[in-house]
Amino acid sequence: MESASIPAQNGPAVSRAAVADVIAALRTSAPLVHCLTNVVASQFTANVLLAAGAAPAMVHSAEEAGALARVAGGVLVNLGTVTSVTAEAMRVAVKEAAGAGRPWVLDPVAVGPLPWRTELARELLESATPAVVRGNPSEILALDGGGTGGRGVDSTDTPEAALAAATALSRRYGCAVAVSGPEDVLTDGTRVVRVSNGHPLLPLVTGTGCSLGALVAACTAVTGDALLAATAATALLTVAAESAATRSTGPGTFAVALIDALYELSPDRLAGALNLR
Amino acid sequence: MESASIPAQNGPAVSRAAVADVIAALRTSAPLVHCLTNVVASQFTANVLLAAGAAPAMVHSAEEAGALARVAGGVLVNLGTVTSVTAEAMRVAVKEAAGAGRPWVLDPVAVGPLPWRTELARELLESATPAVVRGNPSEILALDGGGTGGRGVDSTDTPEAALAAATALSRRYGCAVAVSGPEDVLTDGTRVVRVSNGHPLLPLVTGTGCSLGALVAACTAVTGDALLAATAATALLTVAAESAATRSTGPGTFAVALIDALYELSPDRLAGALNLR
Amino acid sequence: MESASIPAQNGPAVSRAAVADVIAALRTSAPLVHCLTNVVASQFTANVLLAAGAAPAMVHSAEEAGALARVAGGVLVNLGTVTSVTAEAMRVAVKEAAGAGRPWVLDPVAVGPLPWRTELARELLESATPAVVRGNPSEILALDGGGTGGRGVDSTDTPEAALAAATALSRRYGCAVAVSGPEDVLTDGTRVVRVSNGHPLLPLVTGTGCSLGALVAACTAVTGDALLAATAATALLTVAAESAATRSTGPGTFAVALIDALYELSPDRLAGALNLR
Repeated sequence: MESASIPAQNGPAVSRAAVADVIAALRTSAPLVHCLTNVVASQFTANVLLAAGAAPAMVHSAEEAGALARVAGGVLVNLGTVTSVTAEAMRVAVKEAAGAGRPWVLDPVAVGPLPWRTELARELLESATPAVVRGNPSEILALDGGGTGGRGVDSTDTPEAALAAATALSRRYGCAVAVSGPEDVLTDGTRVVRVSNGHPLLPLVTGTGCSLGALVAACTAVTGDALLAATAATALLTVAAESAATRSTGPGTFAVALIDALYELSPDRLAGALNLR
Repeated sequence: MESASIPAQNGPAVSRAAVADVIAALRTSAPLVHCLTNVVASQFTANVLLAAGAAPAMVHSAEEAGALARVAGGVLVNLGTVTSVTAEAMRVAVKEAAGAGRPWVLDPVAVGPLPWRTELARELLESATPAVVRGNPSEILALDGGGTGGRGVDSTDTPEAALAAATALSRRYGCAVAVSGPEDVLTDGTRVVRVSNGHPLLPLVTGTGCSLGALVAACTAVTGDALLAATAATALLTVAAESAATRSTGPGTFAVALIDALYELSPDRLAGALNLR
Repeated sequence: MESASIPAQNGPAVSRAAVADVIAALRTSAPLVHCLTNVVASQFTANVLLAAGAAPAMVHSAEEAGALARVAGGVLVNLGTVTSVTAEAMRVAVKEAAGAGRPWVLDPVAVGPLPWRTELARELLESATPAVVRGNPSEILALDGGGTGGRGVDSTDTPEAALAAATALSRRYGCAVAVSGPEDVLTDGTRVVRVSNGHPLLPLVTGTGCSLGALVAACTAVTGDALLAATAATALLTVAAESAATRSTGPGTFAVALIDALYELSPDRLAGALNLR
């Protein structure tokens, strides 16, 4: 009764029900997610994808990355430990994914203080339209800094402080942008979604942010709405984190419990626990 | 009394007692296992080997892979994240292992859909006789497909459906072939062994198949019977998985419990729990 | 009363209180630790650093390793899976770290039997003074073996047997040397410290030695006394291991509990449990 009086336009830009549907579709279709990711997060990322119901594949040679990208449901490009060798594989994968109409996701790890990868990130974004860019506030601010030298990038930036940069990037590259933090802020340049789930132990486990990028790529395989895909992935990881925290005594047990929680979490329970606005 | 009436030729091609002896020898001799494996499975593989009693070493530069292969008890070549750089190290390691009489094991990850590594797998197999090839049904079918274009490879293939291909590969390359699945099927071209242990959570943990390849390499260090080595490794991992599953609430806790179970499992208890035919 | 009768010079070369202060400073300042480390230990190392309060960064391209080394609190160079590509990044990182006055730590994994990396280790040590070299007894003995062909290196060497080699290396390169084992022996060429904490499960988890190297690098960021930094790192890992062992049933659960223990361990409790002489 009460809720009926709230006008629809005041609700979140994507609905809990739509998020639940994406997660249900992910579990049903088990999309192949091709990850060109860093060596630190590879194992955890693969286990996160498996627990969520997706099928990870990790191939990062220029000889093969294109062939896999053409048949993947979604492609993740994560710059964490990129070298000149894997950069070439990323170029090929992005080109072939785009040519085959496969969505790809950029995780611009540490873009900003490291000029070489900052240039690579921009080159990839210019070469083919991504579905989603996912990063922390500093990375999103840096990526938007452009050739002008950019604004100061500070690790204490909040997602909210990066919203203008995220919106600018969304419009420039025609993609959704997901900014991670205590409250995640996501936009496609028009709509804005905020997710207030998660737990302080999440950033104390290496690879959780990188795994979120992989989950976003998985979700882009089951919905053409990139903002919805990014929101669903964020919802899945952060609600699972809350469940995992109740069974943890520190970051070691939390990382293990997070995999179990991702595996157990039903779309309905996810929707019920989701703090979305 | 009852068992005495079963003719010997109707029993499994390798005995439970022989399997137990291999695992006991593995624990006693702690062989050095040189793994040229993928970056996703490296950590888990090393922990599996340590828990099983072996000594893992992971060196994948062409400058050094040969020196280590010459002194290793067994060598694993896993194509998961192979690049042109690590491919060269694999060529050197296989050549040097063969020259020094060291057994080597091929895990042809994702052979089939990816032509570059399919060619590499065949090149390595032609260059030196492996002790064992271990793969999933699709990989074994693809590897046997040869230059003729091969049969359709489908992820729903069962190990039993790949038995003819496994037998053909065994005879062509003079090695044992282990096909993993809900029931593992192993052959050396003459004898066939089937192992019906394991748990549905095993494929939900990344690197369990790759770790099985490493355990096979470890067991080839302690027995010259390649089929027995592959059977013992399969038995160890799958029986440990059953034990781990009783202490797990999902794939996260299962992966942790699997390491503990490998560490605890005595040869006798392994033999007692083994479903071998 | 009794303890007051022990002359000060008979106490350990670094005090428990100084160790506790280093760990407290580590937690407060959260130094950026740039790890050029191996692919097997990367994830575990990052999680160990995060649990200890440091901020890991892992970049191993020659294009970027220098930029990160210049701003890091400490730099780790671990030779575990070094290739010609990452060796170049290590050369750059060491040079830039030294130029910017940043401490760097060498973990000479498998130096001795593998000539290529043995040469690289010596080249790096000659190129810039490290803060600390951390290795097992065989590695320290091999590193001291020099161009003379060296002594026999045996994995059964004890840290005590490597003390003369450690002292020689300390004086030659102007650094502290930490030799790991059941009892850790550390020296800066003048003072000698022995730490008798730890647990037999530690060497059964891959990456624990490598993680110790990373913790040493983290501690060099908060104290200019390299021997104290290496002692504090050793104390933290080995006392945490004792705590973890009480909550473990094997190496799988132990590895998880170790991360929790590192996260929970207060400087005061660390000092109280430390067996230092």
